[in-house]
Amino acid sequence: MRGVTARRLVTKVTLGQAGVRRPDVLATEEPLELRIGGRAMAVTMRTPGADFDLAAGFLVSEGIVTHTEQLISIRYWPGTGCGTRDGGIDRYNILEIVLAGSVQVPGEAGRSRLTNSSCGLCAKSSIDATVTGSAYEVGQDTLRIDAGTLVALPDRLRAAQEVFGQTGGLHGAALFDGSTHELLVSREDVGRHNAVDKVIGWGLRERRLPLRGTVLMVSGRTSFELVQKALMAGIPMLAAVSAPSSLAVDLAVESKMTLVGFVRGRSFVVYAGGERVIQSVRSG
Amino acid sequence: MRGVTARRLVTKVTLGQAGVRRPDVLATEEPLELRIGGRAMAVTMRTPGADFDLAAGFLVSEGIVTHTEQLISIRYWPGTGCGTRDGGIDRYNILEIVLAGSVQVPGEAGRSRLTNSSCGLCAKSSIDATVTGSAYEVGQDTLRIDAGTLVALPDRLRAAQEVFGQTGGLHGAALFDGSTHELLVSREDVGRHNAVDKVIGWGLRERRLPLRGTVLMVSGRTSFELVQKALMAGIPMLAAVSAPSSLAVDLAVESKMTLVGFVRGRSFVVYAGGERVIQSVRSG
Repeated sequence: MRGVTARRLVTKVTLGQAGVRRPDVLATEEPLELRIGGRAMAVTMRTPGADFDLAAGFLVSEGIVTHTEQLISIRYWPGTGCGTRDGGIDRYNILEIVLAGSVQVPGEAGRSRLTNSSCGLCAKSSIDATVTGSAYEVGQDTLRIDAGTLVALPDRLRAAQEVFGQTGGLHGAALFDGSTHELLVSREDVGRHNAVDKVIGWGLRERRLPLRGTVLMVSGRTSFELVQKALMAGIPMLAAVSAPSSLAVDLAVESKMTLVGFVRGRSFVVYAGGERVIQSVRSG
Repeated sequence: MRGVTARRLVTKVTLGQAGVRRPDVLATEEPLELRIGGRAMAVTMRTPGADFDLAAGFLVSEGIVTHTEQLISIRYWPGTGCGTRDGGIDRYNILEIVLAGSVQVPGEAGRSRLTNSSCGLCAKSSIDATVTGSAYEVGQDTLRIDAGTLVALPDRLRAAQEVFGQTGGLHGAALFDGSTHELLVSREDVGRHNAVDKVIGWGLRERRLPLRGTVLMVSGRTSFELVQKALMAGIPMLAAVSAPSSLAVDLAVESKMTLVGFVRGRSFVVYAGGERVIQSVRSG
């Protein structure tokens, strides 16, 4: 099994100076194949670590699994005679998933089954299909978060990422409890969608779905797909360090999710669901 | 047809101050469905603009098309009675593609057909499948680029992005001629893979494939998939503002592509193919 980081020999070049040859630490990227009933359902490029969470979160994000009981087991491929790169097969890059018999497994699921099947005919139909396709709704969630608590989340996410942040190549996602402000879980990956899937999969495996009363903080931008993933897991609030897209905002508005961006320093921008963000006297 | 940016009403919150309600400019994200022979082959979330380039680049990246002659035509869906969001269908979100009869169209292509079909069993098999699957090879490319020229590329990419950079939500990709240092094309998108596909699609439509002697500069990180796309288009050098993943480096090494990262200020890091980077006396 690969580590989260990998070393490679690189050359640092600075204008007018001789190049410096040195080892460098990179974020590991490896393929992960998800098999259900012996059939490959998807391959995703991911950073090794929390693979079972990634698989579980993928199943939730794609609308295949909505409750913990539907996921019977996940294990690494039990094949032998491999495990090395030279062998051509790495058993730690294949997961065997067993689902309850009642679960419908789609035929040929790609990375964005929902998007694919929900017709790309217009933004509105994409939004409608996602909202109606989610087993959970977040509009009634009574989460309230203080502005002072919110602006501290990026630093707390970064602190949780610190160990692996050395590569500069990993996206982070962290889930916070809206009442206690406790960091529930944080996950990293070269792909930000994977980082979010890992957080959601943790929720499924910990029997916490829907993830009511929580705030999902992500390190990058917010796309339609990230809001979609949060919705599929019942997360009422998504906060990001950077900007959302138009369709991310529209989906958040339609599903009554709170969407916040540009959480930097002492300020942030509320794009949807502002009623959940409060300013107490002490936050001044 | 949507614009590249969209306005939404947001609330800017600063600790201890009253929230300020104001319009904000966001990067547009809309679905785009690619149809071949009347059948939906893929749906991708993209920023409108250069849609034909995006479709053409997708076909190249996926290994479906390798030469301009194979692409007969691309047009927006000619259906009537729509074009508005409320109508449920936006003809500018559907492309009808006609390919030469000799082109083999895969059955159910997702966004990562190559990755999916090339077995996710290990990193090496993913790399091997990509290298052997590319119609072009870049190892013999005689491109040489001066370090002083290289460090100026991020600013030139940003300058090309300036018009739409106001949203903070768009990735950029630009192609430079290695001999004249001319900027050949630059494209933007909420998805960095799309931005690269748009550049490659421009190359196909301009009858320039393989894109020998060019440098592809991207605004973000470098994943396996970005190196794969460059390889499929015959681009011998990929430079990025941020870090590559381990698998991006390994694929670049294996395919003899030059891969550079962290191009910032007066320095950068060479991860593969350093023989194409030279330091002339004047670059000091």
